[in-house]
Amino acid sequence: MPAGGPIRIGLVGLGKIARDQHLPALDAVEGVELVAVASRNAAHDTLPSFDSVEAMLASGIEIDAVSLCTPPQGRFEQAAAVLAANKHLILEKPPGATLSEVEALKRMAAEKGLVLFATWHSRFAPQVEAARAFLADAAIRSVSIEWKEDVRKWHPGQQWIWEPGGLGVFDPGINALSIATRILPRPFRLVSSDLFFPENRAAPIAASLSFRDSAEVPVSAEFDWRQTGPQTWTISAETDKGRFELTHGGTRLVIDGAEAPSAGMEEEYRGIYRRFVDLARTDASDADFSPFIHVCDAFTLGRRHVVDAFHDEAA
Amino acid sequence: MPAGGPIRIGLVGLGKIARDQHLPALDAVEGVELVAVASRNAAHDTLPSFDSVEAMLASGIEIDAVSLCTPPQGRFEQAAAVLAANKHLILEKPPGATLSEVEALKRMAAEKGLVLFATWHSRFAPQVEAARAFLADAAIRSVSIEWKEDVRKWHPGQQWIWEPGGLGVFDPGINALSIATRILPRPFRLVSSDLFFPENRAAPIAASLSFRDSAEVPVSAEFDWRQTGPQTWTISAETDKGRFELTHGGTRLVIDGAEAPSAGMEEEYRGIYRRFVDLARTDASDADFSPFIHVCDAFTLGRRHVVDAFHDEAA
Repeated sequence: MPAGGPIRIGLVGLGKIARDQHLPALDAVEGVELVAVASRNAAHDTLPSFDSVEAMLASGIEIDAVSLCTPPQGRFEQAAAVLAANKHLILEKPPGATLSEVEALKRMAAEKGLVLFATWHSRFAPQVEAARAFLADAAIRSVSIEWKEDVRKWHPGQQWIWEPGGLGVFDPGINALSIATRILPRPFRLVSSDLFFPENRAAPIAASLSFRDSAEVPVSAEFDWRQTGPQTWTISAETDKGRFELTHGGTRLVIDGAEAPSAGMEEEYRGIYRRFVDLARTDASDADFSPFIHVCDAFTLGRRHVVDAFHDEAA
Repeated sequence: MPAGGPIRIGLVGLGKIARDQHLPALDAVEGVELVAVASRNAAHDTLPSFDSVEAMLASGIEIDAVSLCTPPQGRFEQAAAVLAANKHLILEKPPGATLSEVEALKRMAAEKGLVLFATWHSRFAPQVEAARAFLADAAIRSVSIEWKEDVRKWHPGQQWIWEPGGLGVFDPGINALSIATRILPRPFRLVSSDLFFPENRAAPIAASLSFRDSAEVPVSAEFDWRQTGPQTWTISAETDKGRFELTHGGTRLVIDGAEAPSAGMEEEYRGIYRRFVDLARTDASDADFSPFIHVCDAFTLGRRHVVDAFHDEAA
């Protein structure tokens, strides 16, 4: 890394999430500087652009870290190339297509002394840390996760989400699990899983999960991609300190109906890159795969149900 | 544990695997002594028998360790009860129904200073260690796993294997993976997975998997429960030291067509209990979940194909 200067970042994948979130965040956060981009289909307006991560790494442009925003399928080879070139690695969620491949990346980064940051953007939502603090000393009686959104709005025309490894409704559902694993005071385990597959798709459009935590407190989760109108991204809990509701994807915290004051945290993706600056400066990795483990469990233990076909254009 | 005396074992589950394997092995191995049995449906001929693990633990019979041979679904509560009663824990494979629950058991055992032994009986097949030694310094070009057997012969009338969490053909397939993860010199990762579900069952009857190891050597695996006639439990590899074949589930090792002399190891389940005696005497746990991680990956990344209905009685 350049002493004193910003960390030079190469971005791989210029799809919706990169344009909507990564580019503005990289622009806004001090300590990082975007210097090159790799994408099969697109180019950056002003920066050097390459058609593969390998071409970007071979270009001679000085890069300290690579941020991968490509779909999970096929990402392992890109990630391995980054580590082989001795660059730090930032992974958009989900971190990969399998647990064995992300564990392999963790080993490779550790062997080379490189920083691996498996990001969970929802953990940087404004009220997540306040929620964690509230629940830390609460007696929790039950937890309910509801994550229901309109797939046509958030993933217009995307096909990889419906393929094996694309995770279907677990693509947003893993965001909920990344918050739950952060804010709940005890680890939890999957007890039952019902998965709802459109008859024409290889990935689920909805899931109904039941967990228990290590104190046997029930945690339920309902994920659904068929919700039109208002969207629901809520984790609620019944506690001895009142009814807890973390809503709007972690943006608002409501206790017994009263909204807590804004925690004033920055926008999620700025939080990711600020955190990466801290990790890189201290040579520390952050690769917590527990949300992904829950998703793999849900597929392994899942009972499959077939529902109506899904078409990108509503009938 | 009684100083000098055998480790007193309580056995939970008196199904096919317990009667065929655990009872004879417990009888044969020095250092362990079966003292009680718990089963919902059956009783031991001579030993005190209980209808639940809780009743066995509350009976006043002195027990040092519990061996769980029940189906993976619903086993967590039994395992947690054993650890809560401060007994060591031996798990028949697969270790549970989800990764999150077996990780929870690992944490509980570690917190209480108890021994957790997640067994993989196939690793105790006679030629597994010789195979590992052969491959340790071989240049491996490719690996092929074929595990094909007749489900009607090995699981007559068993329904839990077809339910979510029963794993279907991965119930034997995980044995192959337990050997592969032991004998191959490098970790491997799943690249693709095709799963074949009978139209009337919730678990696959066959699977076709493709892995790569960390040196990018291809590892293929074919699991099939529809094989009648001769059964196939073979791991083969092309290497610079010749063609490697570990056949008959790890019983025979053949290099370039010549069979290696018998390694003289004992029968698999005796190996399990001998190993447990060593673990208990040194207060060491042995809980390698890597075979189970590969199975969870195969479900998560799996592309589903529907095949003919399966009925226990052949048509």
